Amino acid sequence: MTIAAINARNQFRGHIIEIIESPVVSEVVVGTPFGSVASVITTRSLKELGLKVGSEVVAIVKATEVSIAKL
Amino acid sequence: MTIAAINARNQFRGHIIEIIESPVVSEVVVGTPFGSVASVITTRSLKELGLKVGSEVVAIVKATEVSIAKL
Amino acid sequence: MTIAAINARNQFRGHIIEIIESPVVSEVVVGTPFGSVASVITTRSLKELGLKVGSEVVAIVKATEVSIAKL
Amino acid sequence: MTIAAINARNQFRGHIIEIIESPVVSEVVVGTPFGSVASVITTRSLKELGLKVGSEVVAIVKATEVSIAKL
Amino acid sequence: MTIAAINARNQFRGHIIEIIESPVVSEVVVGTPFGSVASVITTRSLKELGLKVGSEVVAIVKATEVSIAKL
Amino acid sequence: MTIAAINARNQFRGHIIEIIESPVVSEVVVGTPFGSVASVITTRSLKELGLKVGSEVVAIVKATEVSIAKL
Repeated sequence: MTIAAINARNQFRGHIIEIIESPVVSEVVVGTPFGSVASVITTRSLKELGLKVGSEVVAIVKATEVSIAKL
Repeated sequence: MTIAAINARNQFRGHIIEIIESPVVSEVVVGTPFGSVASVITTRSLKELGLKVGSEVVAIVKATEVSIAKL
Repeated sequence: MTIAAINARNQFRGHIIEIIESPVVSEVVVGTPFGSVASVITTRSLKELGLKVGSEVVAIVKATEVSIAKL
Repeated sequence: MTIAAINARNQFRGHIIEIIESPVVSEVVVGTPFGSVASVITTRSLKELGLKVGSEVVAIVKATEVSIAKL
Repeated sequence: MTIAAINARNQFRGHIIEIIESPVVSEVVVGTPFGSVASVITTRSLKELGLKVGSEVVAIVKATEVSIAKL
Repeated sequence: MTIAAINARNQFRGHIIEIIESPVVSEVVVGTPFGSVASVITTRSLKELGLKVGSEVVAIVKATEVSIAKL
């Protein structure tokens, strides 16, 4: 199923630069031109999507999940 | 209470470029080197933090909230 | 940008049966074979995606967001 | 403490069909009449609730956690 | 449907002390013996549960949604 | 980077009373006047923040992540 567009406002395109696997969840670090973005997903999804270091991906975040801190 | 550091892996520093207010929640758009990052927070927090267009802030996202899509 | 696949384990395909709009966030109800699935997204995303009653969509949920209750 | 009702709009009733355990979090897959729903919860909660393959449960998702993708 | 128990590790019992309504989402503030806990839920859920100032409720949070900051 | 304030409405101050580590995520239990609050964070954050049993911390939760159940 190809998705044309998703509602999530925040999308960071890049390549996977590191994967740490464990039986249930894995950490995927995406390198983007402006810094890295870390994600925790199920290891099952990691396998089903065939994600590897170097894969081109988009890290996606819903606006309701973003906190704002004042400096 | 000043916070020295927070566990959230993903922190995007920038300035607020737009605020859309409503009685319960407001959308805050932060301009960052990654592009703009949108956040929905309670309007009460917006007021308590005194957030305005131009405020220097950090948009923060837990790694467990980040999805990965394949292109 | 077309997305080939997303990590989120839980995808519920259906048609939008109701939209309640407000200035910042809107509620979108998707009729699926599982029953209706309710989503709150930014009204800006609603507009940018051109979502309307009848649009064919997928409601997507990360596994880390699903709670389990015992009966 | 018995709960009469919860605000989460999206409730999927079914039986647990698979559990993958690890020391901190576990994946619980709930089979429903319309497909399976995956959840990641703490292993401590898994134990405290006494969840096993076959347990009758409800998978619950807040509407603010649901994304919408267009096909 | 009565729920016997839910996996969410963090449960704060108290009474509703304030409700701010808007068409899509509402803010519910729960007073507990140790301070107040704020929640944003859909206004539809607010109505369906019949929540009012004074209602006895439990505010519930999944462990994966809790961030840790160092002082 | 020191943070002056964060939008999250719900902040529970206390000391870490237990840590369960695994390669990707760890569970951190914070003892607070509200009772204990459990959090799942990446093990990498746990290390970077130097969190240990006894560390003084704040457990933080966005209002949009809080569910309300009726008794």
